[in-house]
Order: sequence, then C-alpha cells, then structure tokens
Amino acid sequence: MSFKLTILGCGSATPTIDRNPTAQALQVLERFFLIDCGEGTQLQLRRNKIRPRMMDHIFISHLHGDHYLGLFGLISSLHLYSRNKPLHIFCPPKLQEIIELQLKASDTRLTYELFFYSLRENNENLILETNEAKVYSFPMNHRIPCWGFKFVEKLRPKSMRGEKIREYNIPFTKVDEIRNGSDFITEDGKTILNNELTFPAKETRTYAFCSDTIYDEKIIPYVKGVDLLYHEATFAHELLDKATNRYHTTALQAATIALKAEVNKLIIGHYSSRYGDISPLLNEARSIFENTIAANDNLVIEII
Amino acid sequence: MSFKLTILGCGSATPTIDRNPTAQALQVLERFFLIDCGEGTQLQLRRNKIRPRMMDHIFISHLHGDHYLGLFGLISSLHLYSRNKPLHIFCPPKLQEIIELQLKASDTRLTYELFFYSLRENNENLILETNEAKVYSFPMNHRIPCWGFKFVEKLRPKSMRGEKIREYNIPFTKVDEIRNGSDFITEDGKTILNNELTFPAKETRTYAFCSDTIYDEKIIPYVKGVDLLYHEATFAHELLDKATNRYHTTALQAATIALKAEVNKLIIGHYSSRYGDISPLLNEARSIFENTIAANDNLVIEII
Repeated sequence: MSFKLTILGCGSATPTIDRNPTAQALQVLERFFLIDCGEGTQLQLRRNKIRPRMMDHIFISHLHGDHYLGLFGLISSLHLYSRNKPLHIFCPPKLQEIIELQLKASDTRLTYELFFYSLRENNENLILETNEAKVYSFPMNHRIPCWGFKFVEKLRPKSMRGEKIREYNIPFTKVDEIRNGSDFITEDGKTILNNELTFPAKETRTYAFCSDTIYDEKIIPYVKGVDLLYHEATFAHELLDKATNRYHTTALQAATIALKAEVNKLIIGHYSSRYGDISPLLNEARSIFENTIAANDNLVIEII
Repeated sequence: MSFKLTILGCGSATPTIDRNPTAQALQVLERFFLIDCGEGTQLQLRRNKIRPRMMDHIFISHLHGDHYLGLFGLISSLHLYSRNKPLHIFCPPKLQEIIELQLKASDTRLTYELFFYSLRENNENLILETNEAKVYSFPMNHRIPCWGFKFVEKLRPKSMRGEKIREYNIPFTKVDEIRNGSDFITEDGKTILNNELTFPAKETRTYAFCSDTIYDEKIIPYVKGVDLLYHEATFAHELLDKATNRYHTTALQAATIALKAEVNKLIIGHYSSRYGDISPLLNEARSIFENTIAANDNLVIEII
C-alpha cells in the first residue's frame, strides 16, 4: 500500500556531480507517476530500480531545460524497448512541438502512442484520475508559465478483521470487495454490514509538488493540509534579492508556505549549485517549520 | 603539447549506469573540441575537469538523441555562467531549429552568440581551421544523415637546440618564431638557417571519429592512416544481421576498417547495452587488428 516519493534529482539549472536536475517518481499503490524529467532521469530511474515501462503518466512543470531535457531520451528508450501501451504527458503546450520536431529529426515512428495534455488553466484543475489517485495542476509564479501538481490518493482499501472471516466463513474471492466497502451476505442470506467486518479506512494521502516559483501565497490554498509538500528552496534567505530576481524561493520562504498551508511535512530541494552542504538551507527552513527534510538524489520518502 | 582524447560517453542509444551516451572531448594543444553531446555530457565534462567555457566548437554527428540530447543543457548552463564568447556548432541542419525552439520555449536570450554550420556535403569537406588543427567532415552510412569528423593537427613547433641559443645569443623573444620555422639573424647580420637551430618537427597527429554507421568501405579513404580511429562497434559479429538492420557495425567489421585504412590505433565504442563485459568485442576486434583498445567512460588516450 505504498505512497512513496523517490527523489531522482534535486539540483537546479546547473547540475552538479551529486545532484541531477529535477525529477521525482511518486508511487501510489502499484502506479508510478513521473514528475519533471531533467537530463539524466533515465539513469536515475535505473539506479533506483524503477522501470520506465511501469509509468504511463509524466508531468512536466515548465519548459526550463532542467525540468524536461531528459524526456526525449526516455521516450526514445521506451521506443527501443518496444513499448506498446500509450504514454500520457501533461505539460506546457510547446513541449509537444519540441518532441515532435525531435522525432522528425531522428526519423522515428514510435512503437507506442504519445498523448499530450496541455496545461493552460490558471487555477486548480483536475487533470487526471486513475484507480489510485486524482491529480490536479495549479499555477506557480515563475519567469515562464509553470505549474505545480497535487496527487490525492483515492479511498484506501480497509483492513479486514481476521476473526470475522472465520466467523462468517467469508470466501477469499470476496475480500477485495469488502475491503473496498461492500457488505457481505452470508450463506443463509443474512447481511453483515461492512463496518463490522473491517477496521476504519485509513485517511488518504496527499503530495504536492511546487517547483519553480517565486514566493507566492496564492499557492497556499492549492497545497493546504497535504501530507507532504515539496517546495523549491533554491537559495538561503540572505540571497533573497537574487531569489526574487530569478523568480525562485528561499528556504525560509518555502517553510513559510508550509507553515501557512498547515502541511504535515515539508521537503525542500532545487538547490543552487553554489551550495555544497545544504544544512544551512535545512536549518533555515526548520527555524520556521520544524518538520522539514532536505531532498537529496535517491532519497525515498514513504508516507504511511 | 597535448593531443588527447577523453571519452565522456561510450554507450549507445539506451544508457547504462556505467556508460553515458556518446560524447568525446579532443584536446589539441590548448584547444578543446567537443564531439557529440549525449545526455549527461555536462556532468561528464565536470567529472573530467574539462571546463565547458574552454570550448568554442562542438561537432554533432547526427540527430539520434544519444548523440545530441545533452547539448541544450550545456548551452543553457553556459548562458547561466554568463559566457560572452561565441559558440560554434557543426551539425545536421535540423538541430538549429530544435535548439531555437527550445530557447523560445524557455524564453531565453543567450548571453553569447550561437553559430550553426550545417553539415550537408556528401564527401570530405574542410569545415574548420583553427591555429591548432584542421577539421574535416565526411559522410557515414546510417539510418539518417550522419557525418564523421577528422581532426588534423597543424604543423607542430620544433624543439630548439639549447646549445645554439647560447652560441648565437638568441633572445628569448625570438624562440617562438624559430620554433615555428624562422631563420635567425645574428647581431652582426649573419643568417643562421632554421635547420641548424632546431630538431626536425615531429609529425602532426590525426584523429578520426566514426559513429554511427553500417560497415562501409567508402569510409576508408577519409580515415586513411590516421593515428587514432574511433569506430563504433555496437555488436559482436554473431549479431551481424542485427547490426546491419540497424545500420550499425560489429567489432570485427570496425577492425576491418582499421586494418584496410592502415590506421595506427583503433578505439571501439558505442556498445549495445546488452554487453556488460565488453571483452568479447575487444577480443574480436583484436583478432583482426591487434592495436585496438576499448573505450570506457572517462578513459583518456594521449597521442604522443
């Protein structure tokens, strides 16, 4: 019953040896979502033993190279692996033109279908619903059009009360239905209410991704109360002017968003390459919002 | 007096943990040429302590992603480093359109000029002459238009005979001229011929890069007698059919080209990801052409 985020890259525009540009994989139950796809993402997926063929949905926040330059290589590799199921890409409109031009230049007819869904809305917008989750986009405030994404787990299956299986002689084939909320009818026609058979469902889990953006409190309602918030923290607050000029956020500002949005946990990333040791950024964020962790490449965070 | 090749990536279309896609840096004296620029090249340059700002010329063989997908990231980083000198890119025509579309999508006005030189010729063609080297392109035979590159060092400065400096009281400021071939006129007007003052010039060095191509003997005259030949060897010869179908070369075929072209040394690379251990490919090549080495990422080969 995983709800697990893997940081594939936590660097910013200029990559460093230790930090790939932005990419993350979110696993919700058996489904993997790829969020941004900076250069090197293919290799990072491989290092983290996440098979690209398990992914059907990719979300690209904006068209600065450090957020999408790994995509065409990934698309090409899936072609070479003879993928046959469609791949769905949620992205700013111009990405489709770039990818199609690259396909044309390499004279490639993909073995699978590629679907593009343009991000255009300037408010929260449900862009995808799968069996496992709903995905929303919402606007960020960056130098070019940019979107954040929120992943909301759908109702989680309940856990069965083991003794009830024996008591009512419940066949194995009925367990999934009951875990999803059905009542059970015994052999002699008696209805056993679901509440008697199961423990209460755990709360559904939520993750919000915010990169890249200037400090903007308009984001708060979109990420209100999520279990885990990723917010960029490119600079320490002593470089506030630089952050503001470049439409980026400081660690202190990221923590302020987390605090005001009353999220459970904050994870910061997208560090400027000037920071070798990022503990000053982490400490700064924790001074405002205690439950903060710092992303590093290959970090895995599981929400229980 | 370096003439030094650094392998930045020796993999083929699907990258592996140990092998980045194709990229090489050739140092001729103080100048660095970048040959192909697969995904991850920026980081590979960093790992090899080669500063991108020292490069003015990039050569892209063809528009399969594993040979150019690192270019836009490199261009972007040079912009972020506030590069101000021009960058010259020798490439198939369509690359300019791809890069310009990506610049537009990211709303970037580069801090430096970018010049594109389209590869179009179907024979050997001098495409660049610097103080250090002449660079030629020549056609390969691949699924899409593809070019090889030959780098020919220009005349190397001679070494001075130390005792002649003392004998004729040659000032330090004259040494470079003499090493480049000038005679010397003494204080009392006597001309001393260059041959008396210097050791004979060493032979100039040559490197040819051939990736990707089907086995094609038409390439031989273009690489005839070079000191070092890089030739792709994607498959072992037992997979000749696969190699031929995909317009690639086997290790045995690469060695045959080296033998027939009478080169001094062969380096093979562009290995299919199916090969973990590439010694079968190396052994196969050596059975035909003894002086073969196998590329691996971060290998440095110096031609003396």
